Amino acid sequence: MTVVSINGARLLGRIGALGAIGRDEAGRLTRLAATDADRLGRDAFVSWAQHAGLEVQIDCIGNLFAIWSNGQERAPLMIGSHIDTVIDAGTLDGCYGVLAGLEIVQTLKERGAVPDRPIVVAAFTNEEGVRFAPDMMGSAVFAGSYPLEAALASRDSEGVTLGSELRRIGYAGNEPLGLLKPCAYIELHIEQGPILEREGVEIGAVDSLQGISWQRIIIGGEANHAGTTPMTMRHDAGHAAARVIEFLNRLAVGSSPHLVATVGSLSLAPNAINVVPGEATFTVDMRSPDLSVLAEAEKRLAAFLQDMRDRDGFSIAETQLARTQPVRFEEGMVRLIERVAQARGMSVRRMTSGAGHDAQMLAAIAPTAMIFVPSAGGISHNPREHTAGIQLVAGANVLLDMVSEMISAPLE
Amino acid sequence: MTVVSINGARLLGRIGALGAIGRDEAGRLTRLAATDADRLGRDAFVSWAQHAGLEVQIDCIGNLFAIWSNGQERAPLMIGSHIDTVIDAGTLDGCYGVLAGLEIVQTLKERGAVPDRPIVVAAFTNEEGVRFAPDMMGSAVFAGSYPLEAALASRDSEGVTLGSELRRIGYAGNEPLGLLKPCAYIELHIEQGPILEREGVEIGAVDSLQGISWQRIIIGGEANHAGTTPMTMRHDAGHAAARVIEFLNRLAVGSSPHLVATVGSLSLAPNAINVVPGEATFTVDMRSPDLSVLAEAEKRLAAFLQDMRDRDGFSIAETQLARTQPVRFEEGMVRLIERVAQARGMSVRRMTSGAGHDAQMLAAIAPTAMIFVPSAGGISHNPREHTAGIQLVAGANVLLDMVSEMISAPLE
Repeated sequence: MTVVSINGARLLGRIGALGAIGRDEAGRLTRLAATDADRLGRDAFVSWAQHAGLEVQIDCIGNLFAIWSNGQERAPLMIGSHIDTVIDAGTLDGCYGVLAGLEIVQTLKERGAVPDRPIVVAAFTNEEGVRFAPDMMGSAVFAGSYPLEAALASRDSEGVTLGSELRRIGYAGNEPLGLLKPCAYIELHIEQGPILEREGVEIGAVDSLQGISWQRIIIGGEANHAGTTPMTMRHDAGHAAARVIEFLNRLAVGSSPHLVATVGSLSLAPNAINVVPGEATFTVDMRSPDLSVLAEAEKRLAAFLQDMRDRDGFSIAETQLARTQPVRFEEGMVRLIERVAQARGMSVRRMTSGAGHDAQMLAAIAPTAMIFVPSAGGISHNPREHTAGIQLVAGANVLLDMVSEMISAPLE
Repeated sequence: MTVVSINGARLLGRIGALGAIGRDEAGRLTRLAATDADRLGRDAFVSWAQHAGLEVQIDCIGNLFAIWSNGQERAPLMIGSHIDTVIDAGTLDGCYGVLAGLEIVQTLKERGAVPDRPIVVAAFTNEEGVRFAPDMMGSAVFAGSYPLEAALASRDSEGVTLGSELRRIGYAGNEPLGLLKPCAYIELHIEQGPILEREGVEIGAVDSLQGISWQRIIIGGEANHAGTTPMTMRHDAGHAAARVIEFLNRLAVGSSPHLVATVGSLSLAPNAINVVPGEATFTVDMRSPDLSVLAEAEKRLAAFLQDMRDRDGFSIAETQLARTQPVRFEEGMVRLIERVAQARGMSVRRMTSGAGHDAQMLAAIAPTAMIFVPSAGGISHNPREHTAGIQLVAGANVLLDMVSEMISAPLE
């Protein structure tokens, strides 16, 4: 039995071509949601899909669906991701999954496969959330977890709405939401982290996606002269912030591998060399794929801060900026990823997704799983984002085998 | 024997009058060195001094000397401080010591005292170092520890030199430096710290002045995705900075009362909620009145940072921004302060000065001591800077008694 594989050159060529759309004079790649560059990226995807014989539908939040209906009326299998980018982006984040989906469909068609259900390749609007917040907007609206009107009314920093921009670029679709009810959703994506590369593993079978807890904390102490104020008479908000940072680090390292915690931003006031800091403002980013671990971490942080109020006399204000629940993917699909990867002789390991993805939203309405390929240096959201072509092709072949099995159209 | 005291109303009245010079429309007080406001403050002091029968000399760095020569040719006793201010200042910092000096001389004259040596009341140029760096500039030049030409050539943020500004405001004096060689120097000053008030003590007999060590430290780690990077694969420069802050705090608290350490300013890069900090830049301010304690603290910090390079893989750059040696004041003069304060029934305690003063520079060329009075809330460099009138008068009376004894002119 021949092992069927995708057309690697075609996939890598399209990744390169899409990656050339939205470059500025300095060569930086940026296709923010509903910009002219985004329109050109969408046009390219639509064009490739239509040339492959797929029907393209656009819903009212601008999500693109390339449908190989195949005459079937059943709930479709959906493969998807996004093609909008961050500022000064790499070429793989999101785009790899969408173009691989298209490549899988074309390969199946060329091989004369007869799926028992439609296959849809989706490119969701505004996954990155850079121009319009929040992120994963198109998939959230599609899954019914974010209101359509609010999404269309969201404004960028210039006050322009997403709705008006979708109309302007010609991607304000007519299809009502939820017309497509997928039977399952698969997202192929670069890892955007260092684990696969560090361990020399080729495929990640992603069984969960971390819940995220974001807070802003403001600690109020007392600004004082750094020379004349004895150590025991201080309320140093900067030192208090340092204690919180160390607490979070101990908490997360102790919980490994189920919790990550980061203080990514921090500022002091008055921020002068010879003044004891009177105020410290910082953010806390905590994530876990385990519901109880994340909730417990939040409780322990709150208790630590309360102790700082009670015993040390600081005033502390905590504001929750974001909170998403962990998501468990479909166990059967995850085992399928492991099986087909092993059948191809590839190394594979289970892992969680540390970042948010459209799959996070789709998991609420359909059995979902993700496949990861390694990211060189764990780098993403950066022009140095890179995965070797051979690894990109390997991931797409795993996706191909998985889809083949799920649509009952074994290839030979 | 009557206890002679100063004219409290005259002293407090002059403090108020000088404190009214240099107010903006919002009532903020600012007399930066060699500005028009500084000129008006200088004019007021010169006028009061001349009306009191003192001869005023101005040296080539603009230091003002109001001299009660009394026909004597001996090395003068010098009482001094400064009358330039910071931005949005209080009325007492520096001005209290200069006007108290004038008040002491007027009281002695009015009482018919016959000093055995001249008495000079000095107001040194640019003690604050806000407009022209470094601070204590006039007294440093006077003491021969900073070159006159460099001081005159120092430029403010607009590129204007101190020398040209002194000429512009008419205070580029002719007297060569060092014509006046004081036999001793006394500086009366507000504490600018919380100790005297906290302990309910009226007078500080200041026996030393802290040496200062200022550094800027840049820790280089690795910026990474806060969600996808495991805790054990991070080089979090923010967490590293937090460890340094805690190390310094333990070091200083353990050394109490001989060391204070402060990280007053800190910034992270890229400073984003979902990115592990790749770089942390912060300042370290360490002070001790003890030479070996300060040097030991610097060594232990350097060793801590080296360990962070060797064991944790951070790159660390340390830059020294300033370094002044601790100063020990004249033991006999400090004991005299204690004795005359106790003789007046006041509470007095020995202490160090946490801030820099002109006395720091004068100590290099003459026996020197300082007298502190309490600062409400330890506040200074702020319009809320405050000391009760009764405490200001008490401090001036201690100075009066000290001067009386040192000039062999006992009062009765």
